[in-house]
Amino acid sequence: MSAPTARHPEPAGALDRSTEELYDIANQLRIDSVEATTAAGSGHPTSCASMAEIMAVLFFRIMRYDPSAPRATENDVFVLSKGHAAPILYAAWAEADAFPREHLLTLRQLDSDLEGHPTPHLPFVDVATGSLGQGLSAGIGIAIDARLGGVDRRTYVLMGDGESAEGSVWEAAELAPRLRLGSLCATIDVNRLGQSQPTMLEWEMDVYRRRWEAFGWQALVVEGHDVAALIDAYETAARTEERPTVVLAKTVKGKGLLGVEGKENEHGKPLPPADAARAVAALRAKLHGAHGPWKPAPPTAATRSSAAQPRSWPAPSYAPGGKPVAPRRAFGEALAAVAASDERIVVVDGDVENSTYTELFQEASPGRFIEGYIAEQNMVGMAMGLAARGRVPFVATFGAFFSRAYDFVRMACIGHNSIKLAGTHVGVSIGQDGPSQMALEDLALMCAPPDMTVLYPADATSTWRATELASSQPGPFYLRLGRPEAPILYDANERFEIGRCKVLRQHDDDRVLVVAAGVTLFEALSAHDTLARNGIHIRVIDMFSVQPVDAEALVTAARACGGLVLTVEDHYGHGGIGDTVLGALAGTDVVVRKLAVREIPHSGKPAELLDHYGISARSIIEAARAMLEEHGR
Amino acid sequence: MSAPTARHPEPAGALDRSTEELYDIANQLRIDSVEATTAAGSGHPTSCASMAEIMAVLFFRIMRYDPSAPRATENDVFVLSKGHAAPILYAAWAEADAFPREHLLTLRQLDSDLEGHPTPHLPFVDVATGSLGQGLSAGIGIAIDARLGGVDRRTYVLMGDGESAEGSVWEAAELAPRLRLGSLCATIDVNRLGQSQPTMLEWEMDVYRRRWEAFGWQALVVEGHDVAALIDAYETAARTEERPTVVLAKTVKGKGLLGVEGKENEHGKPLPPADAARAVAALRAKLHGAHGPWKPAPPTAATRSSAAQPRSWPAPSYAPGGKPVAPRRAFGEALAAVAASDERIVVVDGDVENSTYTELFQEASPGRFIEGYIAEQNMVGMAMGLAARGRVPFVATFGAFFSRAYDFVRMACIGHNSIKLAGTHVGVSIGQDGPSQMALEDLALMCAPPDMTVLYPADATSTWRATELASSQPGPFYLRLGRPEAPILYDANERFEIGRCKVLRQHDDDRVLVVAAGVTLFEALSAHDTLARNGIHIRVIDMFSVQPVDAEALVTAARACGGLVLTVEDHYGHGGIGDTVLGALAGTDVVVRKLAVREIPHSGKPAELLDHYGISARSIIEAARAMLEEHGR
Repeated sequence: MSAPTARHPEPAGALDRSTEELYDIANQLRIDSVEATTAAGSGHPTSCASMAEIMAVLFFRIMRYDPSAPRATENDVFVLSKGHAAPILYAAWAEADAFPREHLLTLRQLDSDLEGHPTPHLPFVDVATGSLGQGLSAGIGIAIDARLGGVDRRTYVLMGDGESAEGSVWEAAELAPRLRLGSLCATIDVNRLGQSQPTMLEWEMDVYRRRWEAFGWQALVVEGHDVAALIDAYETAARTEERPTVVLAKTVKGKGLLGVEGKENEHGKPLPPADAARAVAALRAKLHGAHGPWKPAPPTAATRSSAAQPRSWPAPSYAPGGKPVAPRRAFGEALAAVAASDERIVVVDGDVENSTYTELFQEASPGRFIEGYIAEQNMVGMAMGLAARGRVPFVATFGAFFSRAYDFVRMACIGHNSIKLAGTHVGVSIGQDGPSQMALEDLALMCAPPDMTVLYPADATSTWRATELASSQPGPFYLRLGRPEAPILYDANERFEIGRCKVLRQHDDDRVLVVAAGVTLFEALSAHDTLARNGIHIRVIDMFSVQPVDAEALVTAARACGGLVLTVEDHYGHGGIGDTVLGALAGTDVVVRKLAVREIPHSGKPAELLDHYGISARSIIEAARAMLEEHGR
Repeated sequence: MSAPTARHPEPAGALDRSTEELYDIANQLRIDSVEATTAAGSGHPTSCASMAEIMAVLFFRIMRYDPSAPRATENDVFVLSKGHAAPILYAAWAEADAFPREHLLTLRQLDSDLEGHPTPHLPFVDVATGSLGQGLSAGIGIAIDARLGGVDRRTYVLMGDGESAEGSVWEAAELAPRLRLGSLCATIDVNRLGQSQPTMLEWEMDVYRRRWEAFGWQALVVEGHDVAALIDAYETAARTEERPTVVLAKTVKGKGLLGVEGKENEHGKPLPPADAARAVAALRAKLHGAHGPWKPAPPTAATRSSAAQPRSWPAPSYAPGGKPVAPRRAFGEALAAVAASDERIVVVDGDVENSTYTELFQEASPGRFIEGYIAEQNMVGMAMGLAARGRVPFVATFGAFFSRAYDFVRMACIGHNSIKLAGTHVGVSIGQDGPSQMALEDLALMCAPPDMTVLYPADATSTWRATELASSQPGPFYLRLGRPEAPILYDANERFEIGRCKVLRQHDDDRVLVVAAGVTLFEALSAHDTLARNGIHIRVIDMFSVQPVDAEALVTAARACGGLVLTVEDHYGHGGIGDTVLGALAGTDVVVRKLAVREIPHSGKPAELLDHYGISARSIIEAARAMLEEHGR
């Protein structure tokens, strides 16, 4: 397929002063992008150049914000979904005087906050981007926050054309109109070229338009290097209250950069220094004169008061010996109990609220419940945006289905967004629905990012407290919540801490330490009783906090049990509780044996499956006896 | 929102014999679905009932297949994307006489192959489904295989309406028309009700139509309980060669089931025995008479010859001391070298073929290269379908972006589909692009499924051989391929095996065992040389096969080094090489220390980052010295 010729005209005829200035700003942003990437020796100048007029118009004509207070609630928000165009984002904020322009030349250095792709280390970045197709979901979250807070603020998301092939974009696209988010405005920089070749739709602007309209958006096709056309489109968007707008901007990759404009195979390549100098000189020659410092329009007054939050959580009403309660249900009950008093909490579910019990929160606070439908990536992406704005977003679905959204989880961790994930239906103990519905890799996934806190409560009381911890502590959390009903282990006043386990059974003569969590904890307690009747004492620990792990308590308990440890988990053998315990004990000579699910499981009844896959009380008893025998104890 | 009333008429007036039979088959499938789920005590009868006429028409009027040879190449293929409707899939195959109807009553039992959601344990199932939104991608893979093999076969994919909210569906939707897959026919069972509430679009059939048309499909809206309308739609689809067709079937959830038809809150609930008996009696009363055994139409003759494959692979041409080659490049070179001789191989890339070097295969065999654009879920989904049909699909992208497709990877493992994933740009050693582009969790993810083989070659020779192993051995594979150029370590004749590591440095006086792989292996070799010059000997192992792990060799080497082991990896601390080594040594008293990336990393130069995050030669030297001191060696 031969490349269509670029049809974008240079602006012709006399321009008014303000339009001239916007073209100058656009070219200045190009200059900055070229210089920064050439200095770094890597980066994406051509991806910046195609969106220079869009950035100039948004940042210096359309958006209302205070660059000296980039996190202010009332500022309009800009999300750069095509994170590889970071240099022009940084250049725009430098142009707005948020920091000195010279700093741009530290791009991509180890000690600079101007990373290769944007992260919230920077005060004007809400969410880390760079894995494509995530910005629109975050933008929805940011727009929802504004609506909940009654803040008159608009949210702008800039996407690349290549990234609009990501399914996550269409998950966001289908939900935003349903939520009537008129304050949300997306732009697609349709520069026709991907990394390795032309994009799927190249410049088929009409196809883009039909798709977005079919998904319920106001879709405006514009020449993306025409400042007046862009202004007109964004003003039209701002007048449209009932639905979001997407501006489909036809642009040229590398626009204005000598030698690379519109060319293939120029993605992600800085200009060599001599070429850069020539390109910059040509851009400088186009400037109409000195401009700026340009002041963006100030934001409207904030109308939002801080979201109310409780000083302390209510205590749960569960009592040992009482009616068994599924952890997933206790989670829903806990959220419902604080729904009225904690306005920060927003709950997102994916059409399983009658399984995760977030329907209890939905009943208590329908305005802060978001139905995400069966679209997990967008659910987590919305939570990223909500968290960036100070909300406490709980996202609930089956634990297995967070695997669908794992790239978003990964990026939320890179961005230190305080998302709170609750995965129910974990392990073989869900039973007959079979392996597609069983979370058996979730601990491997969720413990991998270093800053993720992972709690795995076994009963209703500890689930209630885990939910409280997740809501009150910063950072990303994953709560692993079992499906089956579980006896109540803990009194309502029991205190739970992140990074602390619970020793539930101990004896002076303990010979094996069993570390369990969730459904296997009850198997361990049952094994304890059986073995005790036979004169064999085992110590039983409820891990509760999988990450961070209570290494000190594990080492102490392991030593007290003569250095023999048995872990048992309703999870695959890799990356779960066993590996975490091994890691905690790695510096010692303690011997650890892991009981875990070792093959792809089958449909069956829960108790049957626990036994079949070797994580039942019977398996624990056999393994403990075998360890004692092997080690001559 | 009040529920619209069901507008689907019962067929009125006289029916011809064949139409009568199809209605009878539909009701028989309903009866079977009710009886099986009631016997199991769980399952989704209402989700089956809405699609009964669709199944009857497809299986007994439209599709051409031999039920006694369900895997035959020339059969039309059916993929049940809404896997929770498994009972009616099983019922249809029983109706076609693939197995005795009585077997249906073993649904969801531990010793039955009729699991809660379909898996390829069954000969008529290509891919495991049950995590929603995956079937269409698999269907594309199956249709591509037919085209490559010149087989006159059609592929039918049945989806639920709720699942069409998944972004992955739109990834598949955008690609199939581009590939002009006229042999692909999707159906959406628009029964209006999700699990917890109505779907996003309920019965907005025109919105469905506009969306699919905007994505390039022939979209046919039909009354989904009208046999004649369904036949007409599928016949229209079969006459359309240039693009795929989606049949948008308006249906009623629970259709025909007494007491639950069209009702909310009846998802995933078997009828209680008494209700089931009444519902079955009512359905039986509708039957026009005894029918069958019904013979489906036979397939057309197969035109496909077996895809050629080489007896043995060519040897690589890399030699120790030669020019350094990046593992990712060696991967591309290996694929290109066998492109002509191994027709089974198909390569899928996501617009990064100039980074993964699959462009070399693309040049060598453009017909078996599939550009997946930036849509990783669909890429892996297509590979599942290709693998199910005997192809050897390699999917390549940055390792970080497989996290986007992890739910597909998980399902491919459940289905034992032999997908071959190659993740490049792993770890901090990619440098300045920053954490969004760095795979640092990929080993945690990929080692979790028990049957996944994970190879992590360090140089070009071992990469070539890893690619050969992946192509020649069954089952899912993940190849972890570094971005930087690497010296050649191995001679072209070196033999590599799954589950076997390589001892690269050893001495009678080794005092620490260092286990490394990929980029850190070169750091370990450097540390070895420095320490040796100071009279301290360390043994160095190239792990190569991360899963399965060479436990025997690790134990032997660890003991030979006095029980001190140091692991070093360009991966987060959780779920990677260190944990795998810990697992292999868990039964021993060997002391292991892990060096890994312990925080979210930053942009920077590769060597700088390796050192900054503690996985460079310097870190290895310090850690080895510290271990020796702590343990008084």
